Amino acid sequence: MLVAKHQNTLDNAVKANHERTFFAQYPEHPKAYGEEAPTRGEENFKAMLNRPFTALKQHVVESWVGEEVSPYTQAPLGITYPSIAVPELIKSATHAAETWANVPVAERASILTETLDRIQHHFFEIAHATMHTAGQSYMMSFQASGPHANDRALEAIAMGYSELQRYPQEQAWEKPMGKFSIKLHKTFKAIPKGIGLVIGCSTFPVWNSLPGMYADLITGNPVIVKPHPKAVLPIAIVVSVIQEVLEENGYSPYICQLAADSSANLITKELAENPAISLIDYTGGSAFGNYVESIPGKTVFTEKAGVNSVILDSVKDIDAVMQNLAFSVCLYSGQMCTAPQNFFIPESGIDTPNGKVSFSEVAQKLKDAITGIVTNPKMGAGTLGAVQNETTLQRVKDATQLGAKVVLEGSHVNNDEFANARTTSPVVLEVTSADEHIFERELFGPIVLLIKTKDTNHSVQLAKQMARQHGAITCAAYTTDEATKAKIEKEMNSVFAPVSFNLTGFIWVNQHAAFSDFHVTGGNPAGNASFTNQEFILKRFVWVGNRTLVDA
Amino acid sequence: MLVAKHQNTLDNAVKANHERTFFAQYPEHPKAYGEEAPTRGEENFKAMLNRPFTALKQHVVESWVGEEVSPYTQAPLGITYPSIAVPELIKSATHAAETWANVPVAERASILTETLDRIQHHFFEIAHATMHTAGQSYMMSFQASGPHANDRALEAIAMGYSELQRYPQEQAWEKPMGKFSIKLHKTFKAIPKGIGLVIGCSTFPVWNSLPGMYADLITGNPVIVKPHPKAVLPIAIVVSVIQEVLEENGYSPYICQLAADSSANLITKELAENPAISLIDYTGGSAFGNYVESIPGKTVFTEKAGVNSVILDSVKDIDAVMQNLAFSVCLYSGQMCTAPQNFFIPESGIDTPNGKVSFSEVAQKLKDAITGIVTNPKMGAGTLGAVQNETTLQRVKDATQLGAKVVLEGSHVNNDEFANARTTSPVVLEVTSADEHIFERELFGPIVLLIKTKDTNHSVQLAKQMARQHGAITCAAYTTDEATKAKIEKEMNSVFAPVSFNLTGFIWVNQHAAFSDFHVTGGNPAGNASFTNQEFILKRFVWVGNRTLVDA
Repeated sequence: MLVAKHQNTLDNAVKANHERTFFAQYPEHPKAYGEEAPTRGEENFKAMLNRPFTALKQHVVESWVGEEVSPYTQAPLGITYPSIAVPELIKSATHAAETWANVPVAERASILTETLDRIQHHFFEIAHATMHTAGQSYMMSFQASGPHANDRALEAIAMGYSELQRYPQEQAWEKPMGKFSIKLHKTFKAIPKGIGLVIGCSTFPVWNSLPGMYADLITGNPVIVKPHPKAVLPIAIVVSVIQEVLEENGYSPYICQLAADSSANLITKELAENPAISLIDYTGGSAFGNYVESIPGKTVFTEKAGVNSVILDSVKDIDAVMQNLAFSVCLYSGQMCTAPQNFFIPESGIDTPNGKVSFSEVAQKLKDAITGIVTNPKMGAGTLGAVQNETTLQRVKDATQLGAKVVLEGSHVNNDEFANARTTSPVVLEVTSADEHIFERELFGPIVLLIKTKDTNHSVQLAKQMARQHGAITCAAYTTDEATKAKIEKEMNSVFAPVSFNLTGFIWVNQHAAFSDFHVTGGNPAGNASFTNQEFILKRFVWVGNRTLVDA
Repeated sequence: MLVAKHQNTLDNAVKANHERTFFAQYPEHPKAYGEEAPTRGEENFKAMLNRPFTALKQHVVESWVGEEVSPYTQAPLGITYPSIAVPELIKSATHAAETWANVPVAERASILTETLDRIQHHFFEIAHATMHTAGQSYMMSFQASGPHANDRALEAIAMGYSELQRYPQEQAWEKPMGKFSIKLHKTFKAIPKGIGLVIGCSTFPVWNSLPGMYADLITGNPVIVKPHPKAVLPIAIVVSVIQEVLEENGYSPYICQLAADSSANLITKELAENPAISLIDYTGGSAFGNYVESIPGKTVFTEKAGVNSVILDSVKDIDAVMQNLAFSVCLYSGQMCTAPQNFFIPESGIDTPNGKVSFSEVAQKLKDAITGIVTNPKMGAGTLGAVQNETTLQRVKDATQLGAKVVLEGSHVNNDEFANARTTSPVVLEVTSADEHIFERELFGPIVLLIKTKDTNHSVQLAKQMARQHGAITCAAYTTDEATKAKIEKEMNSVFAPVSFNLTGFIWVNQHAAFSDFHVTGGNPAGNASFTNQEFILKRFVWVGNRTLVDA
């Protein structure tokens, strides 16, 4: 029944995956979900506060843990989650694995798509949960943890649905040998690799976890979701809904488990190093990511830190460009892995139809555009959201001590709705190309570096070097010259960094659309995996072919 | 022109890759290549002896090296190959890389298919070269280094041709935003990872190297081929032909280079660790294979050692089964990575339509079948071929000292054509399931262990354990019971070992057919890669998507 229900959705998603056209199964506009949904979502969220989270169908609980604090109110959420010992998590996953592995792929795909349809009824409570853990704005929380995450999950389901049916389940093989022939009956099986572990981060607790979770699940592997202890609720809701749908359809809820822990007693390494864990998806800092990649015998998918560049050469409308980039910088206070950090600008300035705009004019225009956004009461707080943690806020404060010329200081931005919101406007610094020690690392948060270069060739050379050595998930470039465009594309692509050209208006370099944009290429130090290319799916199972002689 | 010439071949190969049906572009019967080809091939081979191999288009040669000795005559081939310093090889490959990367995939595929068509005119000289380096029989040398290797290469080309066209080169993306829409022009590029290194082995110098070479080449990477210093000639001929075709079509011959070295001065590690090498394909022992897999920053494809099992439960015709297995054991003196080693036999014997055949009767029948083959003047020498090196021969001699009961001793087998051929018949040993220290490792060469187990469940358990811990490329199983068949398949597949059931007659477990059988699954310690699944291709390049705003 579920197979028939979701066949059309799956077919559309497979087609979009191939064609890379615009496709969205889950509308990004909140209004699409009915008038009452936002209020009901907020109420549901509030009802979860200050009590144990009991919606999970996991038993054998050792204790209850919870330490989430809202970046908007500075108040603890007061929610506790079941803490389950690692051996118990592994035992339950192992037990659930065999049945799940044997579910036909069409059935698996339809159950998983059903979970997404069910999750959409929780988009608004997930939005509030994301706001008050990650610090994203309400709108971003809704879109990123709701429809956009669901679309990324559907993308992974569709890729798996397609790849698992790549070869025939059985085939008659007949080799002519002259007067007779040899006949074999062959079967081709996609054997799941084992138990998956998905390690979440505190800034995108749903968006960054769903692709790995659904990639594990569609390929027949049970999954254990280990959220960041400061951002559990958004993904806990998702896991509870997945468990509900699994159970309703006669499957073990332990196919998808939540493994909450506490900062004082992290279980990530114990889980990751457990021999039963075959697959690990990780989002977070590079040091831990490199450790995860180095664990022997694991198939690992990472998204780590990167240094994203903006290459400014020539523009049609300097103000539209600065407005676009200022928004990219302000959006969620630069806490997106796709946010630009290093702006490479020639010392002679940028070409425009009205002549050169000097380096200092560009700096002034960016400063003005940022200030315009953050001081606009209708835009500032909603664009910036909140800073997820104190370390990031401190980094912004410390940035003025890096030895660079301070173009714009970060300062508190008032949030009318939440007086205690942890906010800061972006800090903008000016450095020279010799200040590599400053710009050669990710300065996570709303920190922008304007780097004076000899010319655009020099800008490209530095941006390329950064991407190769330190990784890059995005690169924004502005040029009106076709040859320069081709050169930038070629050079940045050679270090496996994608380039977005001349974005202005309502599209930003930060955005990667499901079904069309590969998120992270997997080719440079920013991460070894990509949402969602074929490798993201294929590495989770093994094709095994069996042969049986057919008697003559 | 070449594109049109080979379009049909490529389309057929892509189709066969998907459908896994029988397909062979290059006939395996020598007669298909014309009456004069064998003689001309032998003459060509003889003309190459005792002189420098000058057919390669590589210059800047430092010195000439060569140490090949025929396992059939014990005489040196006397051929020397150019020795080129690693930095020079890297420099030439780097220089050649950019042009090759920019060749459209259809053009690349057609040039590479053309090289295969050209190589087929050299099948017979390659056959003699393989005989007198690897020690394979004439027929196996012809088939494995000729048509079968070419088909594996075409399989890789076809997989690449297909995968590189998986996404559109460009796409219009339009996101509706209510009253307006956002339009992006997107391009999707498959960027080659870098320079490939293919490390060959002494037993299958062509068959095991061609898939990696052609996988690198079709995905736009230049390749450096590092043969085993004792088995250079077969692949040197192949490389020279590839270079010839490249040059004829206006491309640098340095896109595919030969990196010959000497046992006294191996350059494998220097090459493998060079930062410019991104991709490594390796066939050989596990120790060096594990080292290659551990080099940071490389994409590595390995085929290492494994312990292949035979599970004997019940049979329709015990003599036909023993005949088949005896041949599998004798074929190329057990020097195939697919050759069976561990025969698990219940202590109560094997079920047949005529009642139980006891363990010792099974042992006797296998012994008789092997003796029948090796002492048959029309079969023995031609099936066994020659033992490639002294170490393998010594291992066979030492096997009787392992502490096992000797069922059949290995002994010299006369070769009428080559009086000095290094030969031995297989040694057959009997052990108990407690003798794990004997059967838990690959005993490379014609060494068979008959392992007495409690019952078939016990046999399966041990075979599974061997595959999981030590790797397995094949498993042969014999059972007439459907439930037992299902159990064997499930258990062995769970450790990513494929199973061949009930093979008798002219089909052997050793054989893996291009376009249908995945060779090595990549899922157990026998190797991390598979000829040719999608990962074998996809890991060699990175999808990068670029976006450009389309003005409203």
